Amino acid sequence: MFHKLPIANDIDACFMHKVDGGFSLKKFKEMAELGSIALEFIRARCNDGTLPILNLPYHRDDIVSWKPIVDRYQSLYDDVVILGIGGSTLGSATICALVDGCVITAPRIHFLDNIDPISFDSRLSSFDKEKTGFLAISKSGSTTETLTKLLIVIDRLGNKNFSTQIICLTEPTDNPMRRIAATHGLLCLDYDPKVIGRFSALSTAGLLPAAIAGINVEGVRRGAAAVLDATIFAKNPLDNPAIAGAAINVALARDHGINQTVFLPYVERLERLSIWFRQLWAESLGKEGYGTTPINAMGVVDQHSQMQLYLAGPRDKFFTVICSDPRGLGGRIRGELAGSAAESLNYLLGHTMGDLMAAEQQATIDSLISNCCPTRLIRFSNLNEEVMGGLIMQFILETIAAAQMMRINAFDQPVVEETKLLIRQFLQEEN
Amino acid sequence: MFHKLPIANDIDACFMHKVDGGFSLKKFKEMAELGSIALEFIRARCNDGTLPILNLPYHRDDIVSWKPIVDRYQSLYDDVVILGIGGSTLGSATICALVDGCVITAPRIHFLDNIDPISFDSRLSSFDKEKTGFLAISKSGSTTETLTKLLIVIDRLGNKNFSTQIICLTEPTDNPMRRIAATHGLLCLDYDPKVIGRFSALSTAGLLPAAIAGINVEGVRRGAAAVLDATIFAKNPLDNPAIAGAAINVALARDHGINQTVFLPYVERLERLSIWFRQLWAESLGKEGYGTTPINAMGVVDQHSQMQLYLAGPRDKFFTVICSDPRGLGGRIRGELAGSAAESLNYLLGHTMGDLMAAEQQATIDSLISNCCPTRLIRFSNLNEEVMGGLIMQFILETIAAAQMMRINAFDQPVVEETKLLIRQFLQEEN
Repeated sequence: MFHKLPIANDIDACFMHKVDGGFSLKKFKEMAELGSIALEFIRARCNDGTLPILNLPYHRDDIVSWKPIVDRYQSLYDDVVILGIGGSTLGSATICALVDGCVITAPRIHFLDNIDPISFDSRLSSFDKEKTGFLAISKSGSTTETLTKLLIVIDRLGNKNFSTQIICLTEPTDNPMRRIAATHGLLCLDYDPKVIGRFSALSTAGLLPAAIAGINVEGVRRGAAAVLDATIFAKNPLDNPAIAGAAINVALARDHGINQTVFLPYVERLERLSIWFRQLWAESLGKEGYGTTPINAMGVVDQHSQMQLYLAGPRDKFFTVICSDPRGLGGRIRGELAGSAAESLNYLLGHTMGDLMAAEQQATIDSLISNCCPTRLIRFSNLNEEVMGGLIMQFILETIAAAQMMRINAFDQPVVEETKLLIRQFLQEEN
Repeated sequence: MFHKLPIANDIDACFMHKVDGGFSLKKFKEMAELGSIALEFIRARCNDGTLPILNLPYHRDDIVSWKPIVDRYQSLYDDVVILGIGGSTLGSATICALVDGCVITAPRIHFLDNIDPISFDSRLSSFDKEKTGFLAISKSGSTTETLTKLLIVIDRLGNKNFSTQIICLTEPTDNPMRRIAATHGLLCLDYDPKVIGRFSALSTAGLLPAAIAGINVEGVRRGAAAVLDATIFAKNPLDNPAIAGAAINVALARDHGINQTVFLPYVERLERLSIWFRQLWAESLGKEGYGTTPINAMGVVDQHSQMQLYLAGPRDKFFTVICSDPRGLGGRIRGELAGSAAESLNYLLGHTMGDLMAAEQQATIDSLISNCCPTRLIRFSNLNEEVMGGLIMQFILETIAAAQMMRINAFDQPVVEETKLLIRQFLQEEN
């Protein structure tokens, strides 16, 4: 199956033979037993359907059912604003970033996730009331921030006929969002109660906004299915990229004091994927004193910001470099425009911007390896829907596998729930 | 002097008396000697003028000299694009974020920092060629990424009379940027050679774009001067917020395994400040195996993303929570719009969005403290120019002080320079 995968993993540089006491191939292979446990967990959930995120990649019927909504939003609106926070928006923001650089005539999608009153008002007032659609997403239907934004948007749209302008997406239970929708005659879609927010990128929450943005969401599901297939049918757990990735992360944290996992894509459109991964990894694994800190980085800009620390600071980081092949892309650097600077820029002239990007990517990889930093490479030729779906699926599987290896429940977030209660208390006391 | 400060620091919750072997007030006071060394270093550089960033806050003449440029760019352009990377742009991006939420008629400022060919072309082509000005910034005048972007912009503007449309900012030496400017008749401003990129937020690089954006940059300098004054005239080093902050960071890293410093503002417009701080801290301190990892976070969104890890994961983080007072700001959550959901939302209705933000901020602070996470609070009532200048100055001073305490040179970046050579080699080999 491996030849069909949209992305390739290379873990050779994770093993630091040069460093005394470093992580070795032998130690990695000792993770095989934990790898088997994780793989069996994933296979079982896939077979019994108790984790729908492991079945979603094969579904197409839901996508077909969205068509009337997509058509209506695409024909009526220049802008579509997603109201949500955390898991309700990070997945769709990740996938919607694919539109950058494409000629797409669909609405621009915006995410109003925070509740900073100054920034929220500033952004909301920048949209044309008549030409903007809204989609409010809260799995539980009781997310305080999202309900606040929804009620304020209803208020701002005023007395006009706004009932077709807002769609809600929430569980099919009697919850506040559903009651607000009923009060104002808003369409209310069903959020699958078994899909956990931070794992929802491939469900309606992640893909409906992307479909409205004009993205081929079947392609995203196809790429995810290819990576999921490769895991389910893996003969040896550690031969599978997601299980191997989890094993490396867990072993480096447990035995080598590596408590940070750096996510470093060399593709600007993957900036949101880093933020999505940050939540997935942190909230799934940060429990009972366990968990490593996900660090979002971006090539090449972080070469001018974080690389000094990465290469010369403490040995407490594992690196995942995500690489495309940008050679030949972008504007060409024409020597005649450099004038009297041409001689000192000899190395650069005649190349494209993509050539420079590729050289910087390779220089970083070589520097990480020569400085004995444990480094994994994930490669593809160009970012498209299949690659995006494949990346999302790999990191979902890797997170679930890491939790299994650490004997942690990947699917709850007990502390966050506690804080939510505290917020209600504060507001109630002020009433 | 303290009453004049635009920001207040509260370090009480840094000392975890509840935790066995935790960081205590006694241990903090043992840092007084290192604090004195750091403070003397800062005072000496301030007096002898060898670190101009410590004199800049008192200057106004340079701001006056920019007026013709500011007037021209404001009258001619709808958009102004800054071409630069790292220290050349992070400071101005930080300050320019102040315009969000203000009614300002000046040009919108954009930062094209990366060289991803697809994203760069997409963003560049979104601007109206006739109504867009450019400002290219490279201290050395030989930053490969910035020269590449400058030459491609010159190419794209075509054969028209673009020479007034681009301004360069670089050292007054014979360098490639200056030669390119001379070739095309572009105005070339002087970048002070003694101002290091990542410390340049209060110099021309940071403030000229902000002035074009319509920001009162004198206010930024005033706020910085207030914080700098408070440091220079501090009687006891550890009574000064910047020296104390450095001492806490250094002691927690050295003695308590705390290798991450989380920067958590509850003000959306401070998102860029976190990214600016990330470079300042990482590149200044990440040397010789030392340095802690700066983690950018954002309230309230990271309550739904990172807080589970922060509160229940490993005890390896120091927290700086930056707090404003948003109570009463933003839209009010009107009960009559909630319909049949009103009863279950009783705690929320009647409050403003800012009230909710304030409650979430307080809930996070209380949760961090009750979970024994070492936490510093930096408070101000509302974000304005003085506060922004004060924050920038405090973190510049804190970084310099931390480097002194760690006996590290804060002002070089040796590994980054090595990588730059590698990039040139790769491109040369391909020629």
